[in-house]
Amino acid sequence: MLKHFLVPEKDQILVSEEKARAGTTAVFEKMGLPADEAASCADVLMTSDLRGCESHGISNMLRAYIRSYGDGTYNPRPDVKTVRESSVTATWDGDRGLGLHLGPRAMDLAIEKAREHGIGAVSVKNTKHLGMLAYYPLQAVEQDMIGVAMVSAGGSIQLPIFGAEPVFGTQPIAWGAPADKMPPFVFDVATTQVAANKLGLARRIGSKLEPGWIANLDGTPIMEAVDAPEFGTFKMLPFGGTRENGGHKGFGFATIADIMSGILSGNGPGFIADRSYSFFVMAFNIDAFLDVGDFKADMDRLLEKIANTPPAPGHDRVMYAGLPEHEETVLRKEKGIPYHREVVEWFNNMSPELELGISFP
Amino acid sequence: MLKHFLVPEKDQILVSEEKARAGTTAVFEKMGLPADEAASCADVLMTSDLRGCESHGISNMLRAYIRSYGDGTYNPRPDVKTVRESSVTATWDGDRGLGLHLGPRAMDLAIEKAREHGIGAVSVKNTKHLGMLAYYPLQAVEQDMIGVAMVSAGGSIQLPIFGAEPVFGTQPIAWGAPADKMPPFVFDVATTQVAANKLGLARRIGSKLEPGWIANLDGTPIMEAVDAPEFGTFKMLPFGGTRENGGHKGFGFATIADIMSGILSGNGPGFIADRSYSFFVMAFNIDAFLDVGDFKADMDRLLEKIANTPPAPGHDRVMYAGLPEHEETVLRKEKGIPYHREVVEWFNNMSPELELGISFP
Repeated sequence: MLKHFLVPEKDQILVSEEKARAGTTAVFEKMGLPADEAASCADVLMTSDLRGCESHGISNMLRAYIRSYGDGTYNPRPDVKTVRESSVTATWDGDRGLGLHLGPRAMDLAIEKAREHGIGAVSVKNTKHLGMLAYYPLQAVEQDMIGVAMVSAGGSIQLPIFGAEPVFGTQPIAWGAPADKMPPFVFDVATTQVAANKLGLARRIGSKLEPGWIANLDGTPIMEAVDAPEFGTFKMLPFGGTRENGGHKGFGFATIADIMSGILSGNGPGFIADRSYSFFVMAFNIDAFLDVGDFKADMDRLLEKIANTPPAPGHDRVMYAGLPEHEETVLRKEKGIPYHREVVEWFNNMSPELELGISFP
Repeated sequence: MLKHFLVPEKDQILVSEEKARAGTTAVFEKMGLPADEAASCADVLMTSDLRGCESHGISNMLRAYIRSYGDGTYNPRPDVKTVRESSVTATWDGDRGLGLHLGPRAMDLAIEKAREHGIGAVSVKNTKHLGMLAYYPLQAVEQDMIGVAMVSAGGSIQLPIFGAEPVFGTQPIAWGAPADKMPPFVFDVATTQVAANKLGLARRIGSKLEPGWIANLDGTPIMEAVDAPEFGTFKMLPFGGTRENGGHKGFGFATIADIMSGILSGNGPGFIADRSYSFFVMAFNIDAFLDVGDFKADMDRLLEKIANTPPAPGHDRVMYAGLPEHEETVLRKEKGIPYHREVVEWFNNMSPELELGISFP
């Protein structure tokens, strides 16, 4: 992550993975999920916090989830229905289950189909926030497969190039592939210039947003550095930013995510489905194309090449997607997760209310 | 396309589609391809020129192809071998056939597998330039399917973020989906800030390149507008440009294209395979996920929403990928294709040498 989103050291409180995981699992159980499913949901959030992707960990998300289970928006015991199925595809109705509740199961099915037939894809409608998208490709990577995930997250924030009204949410895309000795390639990006959750982090931390990240409500890109504004007072630009700088490419990838998740699942395009999210996961069985060993050896060659690229003047090193997150995971598993003290305070206030019997750190 | 790449009106010579197609087909036949395969190759170039994608039409490509057939780099009668195959996947060795010679056939196979099983994907190694990538998703779109295409085009031009040495070529990605009444969504982008072929166009036209499009040989982004330099004197930035502006996202998509095309086909990552290209095509049978009619109705809703978005101050209209290309095709089918006079002169000089018996316009 850019330094814009890191918790300043003076505000950090280290919490061990075990403690954070226990607390998070307890919350999901309290929300009404069966124990194994609560643990699976907690694993998505913990993986996010371990990888240094705080924007999608418990700091931003857990209190929002508690609120939405509390007011009945999320269904803790969804009756997931298979709308259509073939040997390599499935379409599910998620019955208002939280995305990260259904996502791991959907990717498991895609992996099962890919193992048997070469490729598997599952499209899920009528669901909610999916958490850190990288989690799902990682499931495939652990099975020596290539994994893909996309989300249609409403339509109220991302502007088309030259447009004054939003059409999409952040419509993220993730892709992962295994290597042999090198940490896997795991790519996970919002198709806006910045993920919505990261604006919340920037606001908490007091960082400025870069020129060309967001636009005024009339669609004019804001081309100076500004404080992170409140939601409702700005719109987001597709990644790339302006047309000359490739913003149409970011918007095109957002359109792909909206089609593969929203339209292909039957949820509808994001701007119609609004708060009903949809997602798409896919797994490729590498062995259907070539020997897994050959694939992973070539992945090592590529990832070593990138990681060993001589840096341009003024820079220390070159990285590929998944490398810093892997390094951060090793570090955080050992030292603990550096939460903002405000997050720890929130948890410790909420814990007795929900009778969790757990406090941080 | 940006105005940077349009042929100035004073330099345009209009050539009818029929004439351009006949001339192009005759060239491929003269290169040694069977008549039907020559016509198929010409169709890729003509579709490109009709859609206003001159960068990948005959202006830049045909003379390069003639040269590479002439010196034996391209094999006009490739003996394509199936290296591995499953119900939904195939891996081919292209035997040095031109990409746009093999691409339509590979997508036909992906479509056939998708029709029977839900999804089809074909990965092809040991091949050459694939032409305009949009052609292949369009094949799927015509069959009421979603189509995908990616290319690994060597490793000598695209820098990683903060890197001083290139790892990839332009590694493009294309994706298309059908609608009912609206022209289809057809997205086709280089994962560099600008396609290599467009630099050739900019040089011919005398347009400047935008800040943040390319970098010095030491990897430092050039942040002012410059004339299009000669190949070998610069490197390309991933789309997005700088890290703050999302260049790591462009580089991540380039990595995906290199993995799905280069590594999954067994061709190797682009930086090793160098002048041996590889590609990946995939088709999704929409009917395996939901009713095609429902899908297309939702596509109309989405594409109408985008095309009818009120423009931001200073802009006329909002577009989606595939809309301007569709409009250009209608226009050019009627009026002819506006080639640069230099291209017409080249064709008319070359035609008698190859005894084509055709001259432009």
